[in-house]
Amino acid sequence: MSENSKFNAAILIIGNEILSGRTQDTNTSTLATWLNSLGVKVLEVRVIPDVEETIMSSVNLLRKKYTYVFTSGGIGPTHDDITSESVSKAFELPYERHEEGYKILEAYYKPGEFNDGRQKMIWMPKGAKLILNPTSGAPGFYVENVFVLPGVPSILKSMLGGIKDKIVGGNPIISQTISLRTFESHIADSLTAVQNKYKNVEIGSYPFFQAGKLGVSIVMRSENLDLINKCSSDVMRFVKEKKIEIVNR
Amino acid sequence: MSENSKFNAAILIIGNEILSGRTQDTNTSTLATWLNSLGVKVLEVRVIPDVEETIMSSVNLLRKKYTYVFTSGGIGPTHDDITSESVSKAFELPYERHEEGYKILEAYYKPGEFNDGRQKMIWMPKGAKLILNPTSGAPGFYVENVFVLPGVPSILKSMLGGIKDKIVGGNPIISQTISLRTFESHIADSLTAVQNKYKNVEIGSYPFFQAGKLGVSIVMRSENLDLINKCSSDVMRFVKEKKIEIVNR
Repeated sequence: MSENSKFNAAILIIGNEILSGRTQDTNTSTLATWLNSLGVKVLEVRVIPDVEETIMSSVNLLRKKYTYVFTSGGIGPTHDDITSESVSKAFELPYERHEEGYKILEAYYKPGEFNDGRQKMIWMPKGAKLILNPTSGAPGFYVENVFVLPGVPSILKSMLGGIKDKIVGGNPIISQTISLRTFESHIADSLTAVQNKYKNVEIGSYPFFQAGKLGVSIVMRSENLDLINKCSSDVMRFVKEKKIEIVNR
Repeated sequence: MSENSKFNAAILIIGNEILSGRTQDTNTSTLATWLNSLGVKVLEVRVIPDVEETIMSSVNLLRKKYTYVFTSGGIGPTHDDITSESVSKAFELPYERHEEGYKILEAYYKPGEFNDGRQKMIWMPKGAKLILNPTSGAPGFYVENVFVLPGVPSILKSMLGGIKDKIVGGNPIISQTISLRTFESHIADSLTAVQNKYKNVEIGSYPFFQAGKLGVSIVMRSENLDLINKCSSDVMRFVKEKKIEIVNR
């Protein structure tokens, strides 16, 4: 739809804890917001279990389909952390100790604390490049266009700064929201007309409940601020005509 | 892995608002928790944009691969709500007005308020069965094993009761959590040994931060409470041996 679709990404959330409903995924939102600011559009998210075959096939499918793939989860020291080995197999690369990573963790831990479990965390596909971890030491890595990150949200967040310059994107994707005290059905036709006029602005309509009252947020997204402003003016025109209360703009 | 994998499901979240990072998906967690209680395991989640071709191909792939498919989002009255029509096309069924649904909404709205936008919400695949909506009137529907639900979390939640008897599952999946004040690497080997002993219990290890302190939650899942209890005893054995503080059990 927009120019930015040229630079796109998929997110692959790896972990039974998300599929079981126990843990709410927040990394999608973190990664998508960050990628939008770099002019990269997320076109697909998949959540899959800690199963080698599933990780391998998903990585191989997504890395061919999208500019970038970001995985989250499964790179810790326990038995259910199989992402790094599965990514190695997906790329048909040897799974081996990363010497630079080894040195980083050796320096990070107190003498005697760099045990087997921790050493597992620097086993990676041969030739992988490190993604440094300012929070808890153990690095992530990337191979070609696949970026392998941890599942813990605060750690993942802290590692994004280190790969910013590896991501080539378009113009940042700008978003503008107008929240109205109305029903979707009341504005559906007018909104369709605006969308038809501005094909390069992605217009979304999202009902919300706030303090017990219904409303609708209209979200306009594009890399072109000028277009968004024009689109927004057209929305405001029918809002005034229909005498709709503006909740937020 | 477990018996319950026989009864499985995929969740298909449809909506640009999730992919843009603007909205945090919570429906996955709601649906997964509910399905687990019915003995159905969620094996995959996909988040896709409001694009007809993507919705069609995803629905067709997932409905053949899994026992059940639950979609969320895109069934409102606005231009970006294209789920119902796309599902019709996926099944190669005519997209038409659902007469029973029409009567429900006709009675739901005040005279004169059942406008075109609202009438769009009862266009569905021919022969679709309704999923009643106790919150806001407009029903969802299902065709074969594909259940089409709205994106607004509170509305989706309120509709699950109405389809409970349509879901055939195994025994409820039980989950037990032991939270410890430790590091994953400190317990990795012991946990691997326990997992190897109890192949039919899915054991996950999840680091957490709480009040500035690190910890690890060990989550054991199975449909067999007896197995979980045995597994849990084995975990408690190494916890005592290693003198690890228990945060929560």
